[in-house]
Amino acid sequence: MNWLTDVNERARQRIEEISRLPVYRDRHLTLLTDLYQLTMMYGHFREGRHEERVVFDLFYRQNPCGNGYAITAGLEQVVWYLYNLRFSDADLAYLRSLNMFSDEFLQYLKNFTFHGDVYAIPEGTVVFPNEPLLRVEGPIVEVQLIESAILSFINHQSLIATKARRIVEAARTNDGHEDNPVIEMGLRRAQNVDASVFGARAAIIGGCVSTSNLMAAESYHLPVAGTQGHSWIQSFPSELEAFEAYASAFPDDTVLLVDTYDVLRSGVPNAIRVGLRLKEEGHTLKGIRIDSGDLAYLSKRARKMLDAAGLTETKIIASSDLDEYTIRDLVTQGAEIDSWGVGTNLITSIDCPALGCVYKLVAQEVNHVLEPRIKVSENPSKITNPGRKKVLRLYVDDHAVADLIALVDETYDPSEPLELFDPIHTYKRKVIQNYRVEELLVPVFQGGTLVYELPELPEIQARVEVQVEYFGSEIRRHLKPHGYHVDLSQPLWDLKQKLLHQWRGRRVAQSK
Amino acid sequence: MNWLTDVNERARQRIEEISRLPVYRDRHLTLLTDLYQLTMMYGHFREGRHEERVVFDLFYRQNPCGNGYAITAGLEQVVWYLYNLRFSDADLAYLRSLNMFSDEFLQYLKNFTFHGDVYAIPEGTVVFPNEPLLRVEGPIVEVQLIESAILSFINHQSLIATKARRIVEAARTNDGHEDNPVIEMGLRRAQNVDASVFGARAAIIGGCVSTSNLMAAESYHLPVAGTQGHSWIQSFPSELEAFEAYASAFPDDTVLLVDTYDVLRSGVPNAIRVGLRLKEEGHTLKGIRIDSGDLAYLSKRARKMLDAAGLTETKIIASSDLDEYTIRDLVTQGAEIDSWGVGTNLITSIDCPALGCVYKLVAQEVNHVLEPRIKVSENPSKITNPGRKKVLRLYVDDHAVADLIALVDETYDPSEPLELFDPIHTYKRKVIQNYRVEELLVPVFQGGTLVYELPELPEIQARVEVQVEYFGSEIRRHLKPHGYHVDLSQPLWDLKQKLLHQWRGRRVAQSK
Repeated sequence: MNWLTDVNERARQRIEEISRLPVYRDRHLTLLTDLYQLTMMYGHFREGRHEERVVFDLFYRQNPCGNGYAITAGLEQVVWYLYNLRFSDADLAYLRSLNMFSDEFLQYLKNFTFHGDVYAIPEGTVVFPNEPLLRVEGPIVEVQLIESAILSFINHQSLIATKARRIVEAARTNDGHEDNPVIEMGLRRAQNVDASVFGARAAIIGGCVSTSNLMAAESYHLPVAGTQGHSWIQSFPSELEAFEAYASAFPDDTVLLVDTYDVLRSGVPNAIRVGLRLKEEGHTLKGIRIDSGDLAYLSKRARKMLDAAGLTETKIIASSDLDEYTIRDLVTQGAEIDSWGVGTNLITSIDCPALGCVYKLVAQEVNHVLEPRIKVSENPSKITNPGRKKVLRLYVDDHAVADLIALVDETYDPSEPLELFDPIHTYKRKVIQNYRVEELLVPVFQGGTLVYELPELPEIQARVEVQVEYFGSEIRRHLKPHGYHVDLSQPLWDLKQKLLHQWRGRRVAQSK
Repeated sequence: MNWLTDVNERARQRIEEISRLPVYRDRHLTLLTDLYQLTMMYGHFREGRHEERVVFDLFYRQNPCGNGYAITAGLEQVVWYLYNLRFSDADLAYLRSLNMFSDEFLQYLKNFTFHGDVYAIPEGTVVFPNEPLLRVEGPIVEVQLIESAILSFINHQSLIATKARRIVEAARTNDGHEDNPVIEMGLRRAQNVDASVFGARAAIIGGCVSTSNLMAAESYHLPVAGTQGHSWIQSFPSELEAFEAYASAFPDDTVLLVDTYDVLRSGVPNAIRVGLRLKEEGHTLKGIRIDSGDLAYLSKRARKMLDAAGLTETKIIASSDLDEYTIRDLVTQGAEIDSWGVGTNLITSIDCPALGCVYKLVAQEVNHVLEPRIKVSENPSKITNPGRKKVLRLYVDDHAVADLIALVDETYDPSEPLELFDPIHTYKRKVIQNYRVEELLVPVFQGGTLVYELPELPEIQARVEVQVEYFGSEIRRHLKPHGYHVDLSQPLWDLKQKLLHQWRGRRVAQSK
């Protein structure tokens, strides 16, 4: 077995393994698409141009939640989807029932699989507006069909990973508290099943340490967290009895919810009683959880009470409508909180519940030659970058200084100085030298064959930690971050200008 | 077969049919729960109290999106989930791997099914804060396990149904345009697969006429809508050729996207050319779609051009970041738009992406007697209403005048005058007479047996149209709607006061 087939075989084994996860198992999503993808596919088929090759870029135009960057996530789901993409008999029967498509076309779909090439920025990468996160190349019908589903996967998971990152970083400003873990616990407010499970996955990528969602934890071997609800406490004759019963069941893993009656007058004193008994028996009360009230005041008082009782190892966990702003404020006020349970605001990305990735035609084969395409808009920020492109990240002294979107066949010699310029205000220029280049897009599918071995989740999570360190604090600020330079190469900029002028001429011609 | 078994048999057949839908088929969601549900279940099991009966209410505290009410949705998903609730061998193996639970408990879960009673407000009902949308009664372990999943289903679908309703009503203010349909097309921005499919379902409940999402359309037999994307137009040498090719494929179902180059100078004139050719051939150009630019100006100009060419039957469809506010503004400005395609803002409920339904213990069996329970909070609006309750809607002259939350065993004689009072400002009182009472909660499960035949989606959609008419325009206003009266019955109010006073005493006792 040569090296290449070995890589492909490992990639295949990994995706087969992933396909058996509870979140994917037995699911069939080929019809998870917009009708217009099918009507366009049929139109191309009728015109006999369905095998014509095209190139599409998937990218977003604005960072989510006012952040200075986004974290990529969702590629695993894209790979699973493309790897398993087939029209079942039931799919075809449904399409036939619409009375829109010819038998020939339905027959053609019967043997449909994905034959294209996919290049993608790996999950857990810091990315910026207008950078292709995926470049998809292949027959126009195939590249078109997949648009809606892959956008949904990437939009959702990248959004939640980015939101989670903001929350995790807010918690880490609490320097006195070593790790300041954030726990994802949003299942009940998630926008249905997949939002909760893939949302938990994305939250882990963003830096959360665990989830309360058992299905997500099972699927991704995640640490799983949970204590009691208020109903547990209420269902016992007294709070102390409720605490005792729970501690007996989980002597080494008990976190007591202390706000059912009165945090400082009842909850914490009762927790201390239980904690001292556990201590006598050789166990440690793991923590208390405060789910309401003024978390700064209550946590500081509770910390003093626990410490005075000798329960210095017992942690304080806070929950209750937390987000990055509340957490940072609490930390600034010296709240004695060791870990944070975050629900609704994380799992829905409440202040920005959609990332606006789009998927645009950038090149098309005409007479066996790939021609660049541009989409023009009245709004200049919506004009696309044409052609087959790559994304280069330029580092000087291990610090990312700029990203350069370039055409795939461009080469750079890092020993030569490189002049970068702002693509809009072109007088703004900067020369860098002795830089290092990283190419962000990596091959994932080639001619329909999976050539990328999907990493395990801890690897992706670790990647984020490394990635963010390449960027200065001014870019990582949560409010009004400084913009990072994403420039176009001179050849790409020239091509774009040329096509804009051609388009201008064509628009006049169309209007005649 | 007697009447009752006949009803149950039809209910069973219907849920079996629903379980075969693509959205449900082969899915297994028993572990879609928070770990703490399992730890509490295990705690109750260890205490030997797992069969003790409890009653939980599912309700929300604030209407979503500033609306004056919410529309219920998601019950079908709840029924499907409860009907199929079993621990598989894989589930049990995973739980065993956590090393938290005893073998006896895992053995017990092996035979676990739902034995409880569920009362629910049917889907497509207008509801208000604090009203139990579901009342669940049964053994504490069963009622606890299901909390997270059913909250997610009801929260998500009710949210989207309500948001859809706002958008649909905004479109209908356009009186000159008979039906003013709204099309759901948010798949690519949905928070993953289920959010798109169940979101499309909820959008239909709220009043949307169709969806672009094929998987949703297949599952729920929905009208499905779609035209072309810009990539279709761009992939042809000219806009006219692109239009011609599409019209040849779908002569009776062509909507042409006219904003790729220039709406008024290229798109509309080319669409008219194609429309006139179709007309000659006995077909009708169904519509044009404008996806960017000033939709009011462009639609008015386009309407004139189409009419002047004799294409008066060709509709104008608008899309482009629409929501209820933009639609209403466009309508006010006299935009000539016949139908609206709404994506991101609907499918994510962008300005309020979570409905905050909670699930609270309201009664518990102690020595075979059901005792009411109350959850007290520092925040008075978070104090629960105790006991087994029903929701009565009171109508005078077919106009809903107030809802009354009452204890299940209360009876009302509508021929007698009834004094209602505000539960906070109790001096605010009103006497109604000659009223009609509707009980909103209906039995769905009894002793684990499904006794409710789930309605078809068109029936639910039609229910909404009837429901909203019972309420005055002041309650249906989108901005600062008038609050609808949701009162407590005198017996419930008295019980609540009694328990609050008892709680006060207990709190003092706990703190000793």
